[in-house]
Amino acid sequence: MLYLIGLGLGDAKDITVKGLEVVRRCSRVYLEAYTSVLTVGKEALEEFYGRKLILADREVVEQEADNIFKDADVNDVAFLVVGDPFGATTHSDLILRATKLGIPYQVIHNASIMNAVGCCGLQLYKFGETVSVVFWTDTWRPESFFDKVKKNRQNGMHTLCLLDIKVKEQSLENLIRGRKIYEPPRYMTVNQAAQQLLEIVQNQRARGEEPVVTEETLCVGLARVGAEDQKIAAGTLQQMCTVDLGEPLHSLIITGGTLHPLEMEMLSLFSVPESQHINEL
Amino acid sequence: MLYLIGLGLGDAKDITVKGLEVVRRCSRVYLEAYTSVLTVGKEALEEFYGRKLILADREVVEQEADNIFKDADVNDVAFLVVGDPFGATTHSDLILRATKLGIPYQVIHNASIMNAVGCCGLQLYKFGETVSVVFWTDTWRPESFFDKVKKNRQNGMHTLCLLDIKVKEQSLENLIRGRKIYEPPRYMTVNQAAQQLLEIVQNQRARGEEPVVTEETLCVGLARVGAEDQKIAAGTLQQMCTVDLGEPLHSLIITGGTLHPLEMEMLSLFSVPESQHINEL
Repeated sequence: MLYLIGLGLGDAKDITVKGLEVVRRCSRVYLEAYTSVLTVGKEALEEFYGRKLILADREVVEQEADNIFKDADVNDVAFLVVGDPFGATTHSDLILRATKLGIPYQVIHNASIMNAVGCCGLQLYKFGETVSVVFWTDTWRPESFFDKVKKNRQNGMHTLCLLDIKVKEQSLENLIRGRKIYEPPRYMTVNQAAQQLLEIVQNQRARGEEPVVTEETLCVGLARVGAEDQKIAAGTLQQMCTVDLGEPLHSLIITGGTLHPLEMEMLSLFSVPESQHINEL
Repeated sequence: MLYLIGLGLGDAKDITVKGLEVVRRCSRVYLEAYTSVLTVGKEALEEFYGRKLILADREVVEQEADNIFKDADVNDVAFLVVGDPFGATTHSDLILRATKLGIPYQVIHNASIMNAVGCCGLQLYKFGETVSVVFWTDTWRPESFFDKVKKNRQNGMHTLCLLDIKVKEQSLENLIRGRKIYEPPRYMTVNQAAQQLLEIVQNQRARGEEPVVTEETLCVGLARVGAEDQKIAAGTLQQMCTVDLGEPLHSLIITGGTLHPLEMEMLSLFSVPESQHINEL
């Protein structure tokens, strides 16, 4: 059996009791290490689970999956995913490949950022399409995701922006020279995301378009959701450029315009100190 | 401290390790018993947690919350919610009231149907606004939620339909006579939801409107998501009227039209036996 097990969002103890029992009895346990991270590292998980973990980066999962599936028809193999296993498309692909090999699978769900964002008080059913915000480079500055934000906002829906994670990336020089030297991991902050968004807004104005999102749009920055030191800050997009949310992972919500009074009241618990009262936004 | 603890979706062991530790040390533990249910009852939870649970129905939570908050500034009180605490608006309200009383709170997240539906292979970020489908009566047959389904589908987004739950309801006669006698709980099935939806489609045709959803629209029925005996069936809305998904809870997804090839391939794992191949829908 192949078990896909969600680890939740905080630390080692956010695994479910069922998940932990399975991890402790599997013959091999993989830790998916490229779509998200917990607030603790592999060693802390190994100590708590009492098991050695095999790190599975993108290359292992997408190109060497046969190693993961080896003997999984007769032994139990666990594949651990931060959040819930269905947060990222790559895990559907793993299930399809297992099914083709005749390997049965079972999923043990957990919280993911897709539902835990509810902690800021915005109502989950009012979220539209989720978007990903990637690190811009000098030559690659995609703006197309903004159309989805616009559509959501026009429909009164909130947009959850998942912020870029770069792990095990090679510099161009190391890539060309075939040197397997990796850059330190990078996690986009709410500040960086907000700055990129503001630049898009300014570009739209320069093209004569009327931006649906402006410097004054009410946003929510979230950091380390589900961990004891999680931080939430509600304020304008402009304020999101400077708010200090601390360590990764960060996420950003662009609100859908009109809020329910209960949403307003919840957000006011988290309004950035220097901000006017949320109700005035 | 007031702890809001998600129980996940299946049975007693779907609580997180962190959640279980808190439950075992709290001075009072409430079980919210009206927005959702697990596949096991209160007694099974009490046995596994090793704690007595106080059932909290809608009346207790909305009108007698002071009992829940009593001494919560100096003692630890746990409030258990099936799924994740932020699935239902009523729990935001509980947080706001606690905050006003100066009671600190902490949330321990878990899987909810809002993210676990990903198990059918439809991509989570492609879901639009979630809707609730309520039991129709002879005199109350609301259709307005269908506008949201329509808007989602026009934007290429899937719609998760949460199906009605009736617990601790009184018959009109018992209500009038002030008798606290309650009807047996009712949980809407995918069959019942699909039949109501088809009636709406027929009403739209009768009014000369062109329905965005028809008998042939690709849907996904889900039952007991997260439990070992979960069932998923992909087929037309017409087929959803007769597919047998077994015991509650059920949910229904109306797909957004164009699917990603990976979504198609995942859904074909669950196509209803008598159906033509999903790819032909």
